[in-house]
Amino acid sequence: VESRYQKLSEIERHRALKKLDGWALVEGREAITKRFNFTTFNEAFGWMCRVALVAEKMDHHPVWLNIYNVVDVTMITHNVSGLTTLDFEMAQKMDDLFKYS
Amino acid sequence: VESRYQKLSEIERHRALKKLDGWALVEGREAITKRFNFTTFNEAFGWMCRVALVAEKMDHHPVWLNIYNVVDVTMITHNVSGLTTLDFEMAQKMDDLFKYS
Repeated sequence: VESRYQKLSEIERHRALKKLDGWALVEGREAITKRFNFTTFNEAFGWMCRVALVAEKMDHHPVWLNIYNVVDVTMITHNVSGLTTLDFEMAQKMDDLFKYS
Repeated sequence: VESRYQKLSEIERHRALKKLDGWALVEGREAITKRFNFTTFNEAFGWMCRVALVAEKMDHHPVWLNIYNVVDVTMITHNVSGLTTLDFEMAQKMDDLFKYS
């Protein structure tokens, strides 16, 4: 198995988290989460569409809740019930797309 | 105010709910909910895109959680903190689009 798909240790998780902007560990669960605030539904869902294309290409999908102009995202690798490099890669891509939305 | 935007009475809510397929009242809240199951993320998000266009046109948006091939939807009219005809119209449109996804 490629290392991107292997569960990260606690030290690796914290190191990866430090590199991200505004993401946090979920209380009591091995997952990371962030709230993305937009101005309108158009902007929120437009961003979701761009993220969806990336997620599908990577075959790694977010858990996300959308309420009008807000999207709450949780990233977790279900196969390992924890965090892998894939989660942090997707988180970074979401942040990158957010900057241009 | 047009009647579509007015809060429904309990009798009206139950009458409207009966006409829908698989929707239920949320426990302890004036809202309706339904889980939509798809085969893939592609199908789930494709359906969400079509619903998003309708929601934007109606200016009435769902609260929805997507986990890969599953979408949990809640409809509520935030202005009145309860259910209006708009919620049931959107619910019916979601069911209609689901049939063709």
